[in-house]
Amino acid sequence: MAEPRPITFLSDYGYDDEFAGVCRAVIAQIAPDAPLIDLTHGIGRQGIRHGALALANAIPFCPPGVHLAVVDPGVGTDRRAVAVGTGEGRFLVGPDNGLLGPALERLGGAVEAVDLERSPFRLEPVSATFHGRDLFAPVAAHLALGANLAEAGEPIEPQSLARLELPQPRIESDRVVAHALYADRFGNVTLDLGPEALADGPIAPGDRLEVRAPDGRFEATWARAFADVERGDLLLYEDSARTLALSVNGGSAAGLLDLKPDDEIELLPL
Amino acid sequence: MAEPRPITFLSDYGYDDEFAGVCRAVIAQIAPDAPLIDLTHGIGRQGIRHGALALANAIPFCPPGVHLAVVDPGVGTDRRAVAVGTGEGRFLVGPDNGLLGPALERLGGAVEAVDLERSPFRLEPVSATFHGRDLFAPVAAHLALGANLAEAGEPIEPQSLARLELPQPRIESDRVVAHALYADRFGNVTLDLGPEALADGPIAPGDRLEVRAPDGRFEATWARAFADVERGDLLLYEDSARTLALSVNGGSAAGLLDLKPDDEIELLPL
Amino acid sequence: MAEPRPITFLSDYGYDDEFAGVCRAVIAQIAPDAPLIDLTHGIGRQGIRHGALALANAIPFCPPGVHLAVVDPGVGTDRRAVAVGTGEGRFLVGPDNGLLGPALERLGGAVEAVDLERSPFRLEPVSATFHGRDLFAPVAAHLALGANLAEAGEPIEPQSLARLELPQPRIESDRVVAHALYADRFGNVTLDLGPEALADGPIAPGDRLEVRAPDGRFEATWARAFADVERGDLLLYEDSARTLALSVNGGSAAGLLDLKPDDEIELLPL
Repeated sequence: MAEPRPITFLSDYGYDDEFAGVCRAVIAQIAPDAPLIDLTHGIGRQGIRHGALALANAIPFCPPGVHLAVVDPGVGTDRRAVAVGTGEGRFLVGPDNGLLGPALERLGGAVEAVDLERSPFRLEPVSATFHGRDLFAPVAAHLALGANLAEAGEPIEPQSLARLELPQPRIESDRVVAHALYADRFGNVTLDLGPEALADGPIAPGDRLEVRAPDGRFEATWARAFADVERGDLLLYEDSARTLALSVNGGSAAGLLDLKPDDEIELLPL
Repeated sequence: MAEPRPITFLSDYGYDDEFAGVCRAVIAQIAPDAPLIDLTHGIGRQGIRHGALALANAIPFCPPGVHLAVVDPGVGTDRRAVAVGTGEGRFLVGPDNGLLGPALERLGGAVEAVDLERSPFRLEPVSATFHGRDLFAPVAAHLALGANLAEAGEPIEPQSLARLELPQPRIESDRVVAHALYADRFGNVTLDLGPEALADGPIAPGDRLEVRAPDGRFEATWARAFADVERGDLLLYEDSARTLALSVNGGSAAGLLDLKPDDEIELLPL
Repeated sequence: MAEPRPITFLSDYGYDDEFAGVCRAVIAQIAPDAPLIDLTHGIGRQGIRHGALALANAIPFCPPGVHLAVVDPGVGTDRRAVAVGTGEGRFLVGPDNGLLGPALERLGGAVEAVDLERSPFRLEPVSATFHGRDLFAPVAAHLALGANLAEAGEPIEPQSLARLELPQPRIESDRVVAHALYADRFGNVTLDLGPEALADGPIAPGDRLEVRAPDGRFEATWARAFADVERGDLLLYEDSARTLALSVNGGSAAGLLDLKPDDEIELLPL
């Protein structure tokens, strides 16, 4: 028998309750030898966007296998539950609400997908509010054991999978208009553009910048690392996912700029 | 040699400190091949009730093995430390303060129990404040390796084990008087009754309800899933442990109703 | 081939994001069979001291192997990245900012050390802000597989490793002047002295004490366990790392005394 595939697991189940643990237990019962790698369960409650981007950022570093992701505010409604195969032989399992979209893009797109509603792998009775335990975890475990998608559910069109809606930045002659996507634990705020989009733009690495947020204007430096600016100072930098982000050395950019997701942020040369 | 038994682990040690990690390290030293499944370490500080109910909810989904649970405000006093065997061949290990009670009930009750105070498996010197590390984790690891209860401690009467005190709901002709047991991460508030208790009661699935909390009166729907009501609306539903709970779609019932554990909640037909 | 060495992992990456999970994924790709023991990822942001002491407290209970620790406010600057070998055949991997110091002391000191900046095990391109993923995790994984330090980096003098700065307590004839080092999840405040330093000091186990904090004076008992004093009362006790600490039974000493790290605390007999 082949080695079971590794399973990565990301969710918004948090750490206060047994929810993620119960999913781990379900997997351990079905596929006890499948390595299980928790990516995080601390995605903000129902934070589809943060979950989607965290998964996309993590996936290039994950061993090929099954990628289970559950941020599922529509659980119990008619949103679809899906498992998706990629050209690289990876499987993604989760709700069809955009959560899987950016990761699939990084993996070259979906080549096969199934609807899990009537999956023979589901645990009966399926609860109305905990599909992680009753549907997604057992499907992921069976895929780790070597099941193929056709055994897991009913075929659907890969093109029909939900996409994640994201704001769009604008690069103008004298400024960049970007948006706050989410803040990480350190208060670093990820923007919706990468440095390559600015190759011929109005700002460049090393520049001093004006940062206009909804509640104020700030000065910043486009720097390489946190400690390249003074403690307490604001910086723009290319983060580890190669996206531009705002940070305060030793502090919180989200706090300093009082930013919420989707807030518009203008970046101008000083 | 037989395969080691899986160990599940639940505690209130939290995630800020190394406490749960040290217990994992102790287990890894003694039983390196025993699968370890963290259920959660985020039980509210000294939250015996929440821990007990989380363990009971998880255990039907856990592989048979050793179930380590530590929520232990009485550590270092004369509260007993115990290991308990069930008819199904599972072992529960933890303080004898009611934490293990509901899980044992789900498993058909205790058939054997030992007092661990002088356990030969303990790590000497046993600290006064960290029995998870010095007593419970090593006992769990040795049970996972195949030790039996008689090797782990001194026999005690299973009937002498502490029970968990819970409030009792009342079903009256025109209302149900229930209590808030605890709130989960999402602000969903678990009540102390299941839907089967209401088979002939004054309210039924689909009903519009009045919910009377200590600080106010609210309208709710007895629905199946969160998204069955409008965003921001209150619902009563059967949760994934088949217990009735209050939730706000996209919000927090604990916040909206300002509920604390043991608060009385009246449910009436509208 | 030899069994891979176990890896323990401690960081301040937190639980909200995928950072610790990505490091786990990197390790799983390189050393899929190396047992991975998460000590904690909840060290306060950039809390080098708390991380250093948590690691030192945990390490005597950890199986010999590779100890990965990342609390790294200077990431991307010229602070060194190091791997260190001990006489016991353990390896510590992390930033050279004092984080590894107390653990190395407990292990008898460093006998060998390498600078990882140009490590052949690093993941290219190395980001400026996430050396956990790109440098420390892959080095730890290769050491777990059996690589030796000379393969991991350039030799440096073990004596040149950064030390952790800690306040120093003073034992006077009528009082002890100690300092708050950090508070754990339960609000227990670790001081900078152990009971052995007080063998002939002005206070002894069982004594009633006056505790002078920056914001007030309190009465306490030098007790053995939390429940040895009344609920809500303050106690001094020897914690599970054999360090003196302040606690409130059922409450928070950090909250009651309003303590911050490095705050001076005087202990006097009553």
